[in-house]
Amino acid sequence: MLQGRQTWIFNNNPVILSSAAVGGPFEGQGNIKNDFDKIYDDIWLGQESFEKAERKMVEDACDLAIKKANLKKDDINFFICGDLLNQIISSSFSARTLSVPFLGVFGACSSSMESLAIASMLIESNHAKYVLAGASSHNAGAEKQYRYPTEYGGQKPPTAQWTVTGAGIGLVSYMGEGPKVTSATIGKVIDMGLTDPFNMGAAMAPAAVDTIETHFKETERPLDYYDLILTGDLGNVGYNIALDLFKKDNFNIPIERYNDCGLIIYKQDQNVFSGGSGCGCSATVTYGHLINRLKRGEIKKILVTATGALMSPMSYQQKETIPCIAHAVSIEM
Amino acid sequence: MLQGRQTWIFNNNPVILSSAAVGGPFEGQGNIKNDFDKIYDDIWLGQESFEKAERKMVEDACDLAIKKANLKKDDINFFICGDLLNQIISSSFSARTLSVPFLGVFGACSSSMESLAIASMLIESNHAKYVLAGASSHNAGAEKQYRYPTEYGGQKPPTAQWTVTGAGIGLVSYMGEGPKVTSATIGKVIDMGLTDPFNMGAAMAPAAVDTIETHFKETERPLDYYDLILTGDLGNVGYNIALDLFKKDNFNIPIERYNDCGLIIYKQDQNVFSGGSGCGCSATVTYGHLINRLKRGEIKKILVTATGALMSPMSYQQKETIPCIAHAVSIEM
Repeated sequence: MLQGRQTWIFNNNPVILSSAAVGGPFEGQGNIKNDFDKIYDDIWLGQESFEKAERKMVEDACDLAIKKANLKKDDINFFICGDLLNQIISSSFSARTLSVPFLGVFGACSSSMESLAIASMLIESNHAKYVLAGASSHNAGAEKQYRYPTEYGGQKPPTAQWTVTGAGIGLVSYMGEGPKVTSATIGKVIDMGLTDPFNMGAAMAPAAVDTIETHFKETERPLDYYDLILTGDLGNVGYNIALDLFKKDNFNIPIERYNDCGLIIYKQDQNVFSGGSGCGCSATVTYGHLINRLKRGEIKKILVTATGALMSPMSYQQKETIPCIAHAVSIEM
Repeated sequence: MLQGRQTWIFNNNPVILSSAAVGGPFEGQGNIKNDFDKIYDDIWLGQESFEKAERKMVEDACDLAIKKANLKKDDINFFICGDLLNQIISSSFSARTLSVPFLGVFGACSSSMESLAIASMLIESNHAKYVLAGASSHNAGAEKQYRYPTEYGGQKPPTAQWTVTGAGIGLVSYMGEGPKVTSATIGKVIDMGLTDPFNMGAAMAPAAVDTIETHFKETERPLDYYDLILTGDLGNVGYNIALDLFKKDNFNIPIERYNDCGLIIYKQDQNVFSGGSGCGCSATVTYGHLINRLKRGEIKKILVTATGALMSPMSYQQKETIPCIAHAVSIEM
């Protein structure tokens, strides 16, 4: 059901029947290492390119999610996935391996919640019984494409973020036990005129704030409805800008319940500048850590607001500012 | 409603309330020049880059579609769009201008029907009242990114296709008069092992055939149900391969009712090798030419099967084959 302009309320409560998170070696040393289903100790994953390594993580996560749910590939109606690589090849090539009808999405790092929102809507409206949704990123692949190859050894400012090497996949079902997806708010593109690709958090914060405020307005839920409100990958810089913006809007978000996936995934002594980022950040934190916490009963209601910077290296070279977006999905146990 | 594994049947019949097609100078000399709402006589469209020119076409097409429907931007719930450029910047930057909640999709040239399928499903299931759906491409932008810059003057084999400079947008509504979207079949990724980026039609034909055969099987519609069955951009080479594949499968598609958007858009004396291609091909042929024919009563039922090659220049360099996909949407007057 549409409520307001841009929020979907799911009364049939699509269920996240199973989920899986796969990560690289650096993620395996992080804060939530125990929430990963599979950790590779080599960023190549035994593949001959970073791009193929990223694909392998998506394929693994899909296989794991399907297996955990005691289903077969043929039971899945649709696979909805996105990633950061040009032409989303991690998603498309995984879809080839899976051989499941495929809807490719692109919202940069917001792809994790864009895919979950569409998957849940398909289940809610009886347009599917089982849908795989997720997203992925690979640190070395993203650095090479968006900035400089890691081997170049370029220095980074403290506002920069660390792209997560990881894939997170959820299997959304029309029946069964598990955390339920109860609503989704689809974001508008917000561009405050920032241009620095080494400061994505600052660029994305206004989009996150816009979507979160719209979500509460349209769902008419009280500000203390959720045990945890998360942004995708604002990092430390963006997180604090978001706090300032909420304050400016007189939007009294309960600060102790607001966190950012980019601040959760790594340990403080891991040198990740402002925090984690990439599609794999919110995807692995959600489909690993958060789902586990929901299942253990530590938290009951969460709102995951994945943020995305929709620029390309080309648009940057052409002196464009960075358009950003955020999609929020609520999950309740 | 889900029917079979991968087909949606729309009983509420989402309506294409209005649509618009915008094209470049070469398209303005083509077969269906009169079906374009706006033709630019300069491939730069007065912009400083081909990328910005492509965006301008999307923005124009959205404005035209909204105006024709007597609506305002604020009435639109969602904008669903895709294109060929890295990080789909034509779509994302247009979404910034539009300021409408945005869902970015990527299925290469199949994006035109992926966006229409999702838009129609949102309307069908009361998750939206008005949705803008579409896709775009720009010849010079696509050549530069996927192959060689046009200025390089590289020769092409006769199997190559000509990327359409154009944008097509449909405004899908929950009420009103116009052609109705009655079903959609979401395709699987099919890869027959082809690797030649100058022969996309051959690579994509098996995906088109798979989706069309699945569509008829799952909808249980007779093979003569449609007045016109279209593929997106197989061109002459791919079209004939599709015919061979249908024959091999003993699938008796009525040949006189089967055509390809890539064979419709240009005149025979325009030197486009095997035919037109790009997201803008099926998008402008559908939202210009075909919608006009439906409205004039010349045809009543059509099935548009947009085809996409999901490779990237990077995957090609890494010696990957070309994974392909096709999504079919039926429109009836």
